[in-house]
Amino acid sequence: MSDSPSERIKTLGLELPPAPPPAGLYKPILVVDNFLYISGQGPMLPDGNLMKGRAGHDMTLEEAKLGARQVGLTMISTIQTHFGDINRIKRIVKTLGMVNSDPDFGDQPLVINGFSELMADIFGADNGVGVRSAVGMILPGGIPVEVEAMFELH
Amino acid sequence: MSDSPSERIKTLGLELPPAPPPAGLYKPILVVDNFLYISGQGPMLPDGNLMKGRAGHDMTLEEAKLGARQVGLTMISTIQTHFGDINRIKRIVKTLGMVNSDPDFGDQPLVINGFSELMADIFGADNGVGVRSAVGMILPGGIPVEVEAMFELH
Amino acid sequence: MSDSPSERIKTLGLELPPAPPPAGLYKPILVVDNFLYISGQGPMLPDGNLMKGRAGHDMTLEEAKLGARQVGLTMISTIQTHFGDINRIKRIVKTLGMVNSDPDFGDQPLVINGFSELMADIFGADNGVGVRSAVGMILPGGIPVEVEAMFELH
Repeated sequence: MSDSPSERIKTLGLELPPAPPPAGLYKPILVVDNFLYISGQGPMLPDGNLMKGRAGHDMTLEEAKLGARQVGLTMISTIQTHFGDINRIKRIVKTLGMVNSDPDFGDQPLVINGFSELMADIFGADNGVGVRSAVGMILPGGIPVEVEAMFELH
Repeated sequence: MSDSPSERIKTLGLELPPAPPPAGLYKPILVVDNFLYISGQGPMLPDGNLMKGRAGHDMTLEEAKLGARQVGLTMISTIQTHFGDINRIKRIVKTLGMVNSDPDFGDQPLVINGFSELMADIFGADNGVGVRSAVGMILPGGIPVEVEAMFELH
Repeated sequence: MSDSPSERIKTLGLELPPAPPPAGLYKPILVVDNFLYISGQGPMLPDGNLMKGRAGHDMTLEEAKLGARQVGLTMISTIQTHFGDINRIKRIVKTLGMVNSDPDFGDQPLVINGFSELMADIFGADNGVGVRSAVGMILPGGIPVEVEAMFELH
């Protein structure tokens, strides 16, 4: 993959949702030194609404994984809106993948793969894959997935 | 706001609780390069006891938000006790806001605003606001809110 | 303790489990600048199986603490397998300790001490102790403890 992230977004035909307005007092992104930190993102739909659901409760693994992919699209939209050129990202360093989970749901890593596979598609099999934890929590507004991440810039 | 964080703490008449003793084997703060990392802080009261409660269970949103503000006061106390001059902090970079939540409680961002608004009051509308996730968990000792953070130093 | 981490591992007679295969699309470790980031690790047993259980549900505090120690052994194994010389680690900077918890279990800090005490044994009372949060979540595959960490390299 020698094409750039922005070219891959076009080639893959990805439809980016609008960047979500902050849900509280925080910045969507912050650049410090060579790193871009991004606040926890939920799965924004193209119509501006957030997906809802809880894995193992009213949502299957596959539906939750699609939610995690939608979080990835939302994160790209947030970066483009609040930072600018996506091609300035060198690689993803760290992901905290949070899945709204019933106590007996244990497939959080497979859910968050929906996010991680999108990052690998956009930033490449090496630079698009970083370290990660994927765990279950109780998420705000009943969203199924939230992801925060740290990227390294060129 | 051209006055310093320490002056704002005085002007705002903030009452800082005692810095909590570590609840396990960890350091309250650690400085690495130009960054100050701080361990998860709970809401210490001026009398040295921790607030207790779970949002959506035996605690309202407003009570939990006051708990988050108290976590902020506790964090300032921890920084002053274990690091020293609060004016050496340039800005807050990253906050992980954790709310002890019933499964159906979804207002974690509004709860953690209690912490974030205090940081903005002390460090300013730009430097006092960083990236953030605000999510629900099960917290130690039945405290309603815990926050860990990373600050950049001058 | 003037001996090296690798010597301490030998002296303490620690039995390291095999490094776990990734449970999803992520790297076990990533080195950026002078820092080693490590993905969330579970408690791998020497036979290659993961411990299972939930604190306060079907697992006592002491059992969960042993689980956290096993996570530490797993992390050392992961570092040696995917990074190499453990003696290149200068100190542990930050730990996020996640405990699979029933809503009324509140001893997460004591559980995660099982991890932290091992790090102090290996890396020393100063360099082996960093900042930490220890909180309750729902963990993948029903494991009792997961820890992610950031280390500084020499």
